[in-house]
Amino acid sequence: MAELSEKTGIPVPTIKYYIRENLVAPGRPTGRNQADYSDEHVRRLKLVRAMIEYGGLSIAVIRDLIVRIDNPELEAFDLLGAAQQTVTQVKDVPPGPYRDSAERRLRDLLAKRGWRLRTGDPAYRTAVGVLATLDEVGRQDMLEALDDYAEAAERFAEIDLSLVGDVSDRERAVEIVVIGTAVGDTLIAMLRRLAQATLGERLHT
Amino acid sequence: MAELSEKTGIPVPTIKYYIRENLVAPGRPTGRNQADYSDEHVRRLKLVRAMIEYGGLSIAVIRDLIVRIDNPELEAFDLLGAAQQTVTQVKDVPPGPYRDSAERRLRDLLAKRGWRLRTGDPAYRTAVGVLATLDEVGRQDMLEALDDYAEAAERFAEIDLSLVGDVSDRERAVEIVVIGTAVGDTLIAMLRRLAQATLGERLHT
Repeated sequence: MAELSEKTGIPVPTIKYYIRENLVAPGRPTGRNQADYSDEHVRRLKLVRAMIEYGGLSIAVIRDLIVRIDNPELEAFDLLGAAQQTVTQVKDVPPGPYRDSAERRLRDLLAKRGWRLRTGDPAYRTAVGVLATLDEVGRQDMLEALDDYAEAAERFAEIDLSLVGDVSDRERAVEIVVIGTAVGDTLIAMLRRLAQATLGERLHT
Repeated sequence: MAELSEKTGIPVPTIKYYIRENLVAPGRPTGRNQADYSDEHVRRLKLVRAMIEYGGLSIAVIRDLIVRIDNPELEAFDLLGAAQQTVTQVKDVPPGPYRDSAERRLRDLLAKRGWRLRTGDPAYRTAVGVLATLDEVGRQDMLEALDDYAEAAERFAEIDLSLVGDVSDRERAVEIVVIGTAVGDTLIAMLRRLAQATLGERLHT
């Protein structure tokens, strides 16, 4: 396990914790207090750490996702949808006029862009909550830019999908969805800030 | 305070907690156990709740930001930069070949796009961390798409900046940066997922 720790840069107690939480399989026992770890262990450990550190995902969420990744009976497209949903935290808002209005606004947007409507999707529910919040805090200007944001978001999704590519390579596709969704959110958020800083400077100098 | 709670939909104990944590000013005392709350209180309360619930910001981060919003001596452009940085959580990675390579990659990108280089920026540091992680977990395909992502991110930043508009309306500008950065990250993440679901379906049917 010391070697595994060295290879991955993850401390031994953390590796033990991941194994205890069923995020990573234990090694093959080779003797008292000795076990063999494969390259698969190294890969999985790095994936788990990336999801915790950059995806901000909880242990429970990651465990649920690992179970799906390791379940060969789940169809690739369903698996990818599940992976995407698993890394999406739902933030609902209480019923009321703001939520009703947000839901109408989102349905209009989906219809206009030809995006599918699945009201149970974590992304749909959270988007409704975000739109309701923007309305409630008086940021109607951002709501008016919604269609522009959606157009730019579609560009991201196109890049994402081009990366997933061949879904018959199942583990790779799931990895891209998980990493691409969770870590990709942070990447996009940071690129947006870096661009803002430059554009803002140009604007005010 | 009961009236304030009704107006904002925020429970009285939560309002008391926000006041105790200096996120919201106490009301103007009008008698024993009575106080007056202005529309400014309503607005601030909704802003704080939005930052907690949709921005995922800690109390300490929000308090720091409130102090800056309320400090009239801070220049508008610096204030907006600070607001943007405050809502950006830094995730550094340990020094090593992955980080060195990530930093080179990011500098190349900034130079290519004409974005400014400020290595102390939380967004810069976190972007380096994200790129190092992608490299380490074997997602070189995502790294190769970095320039495409950056181009799409620039489109978001253009929309963001057009919303900020006139920075002489200082409180409005800060609100847009705070809400737009924190809540906007979630909005963009959700729009990206909604678009992915549709594009993915088209791809595999």
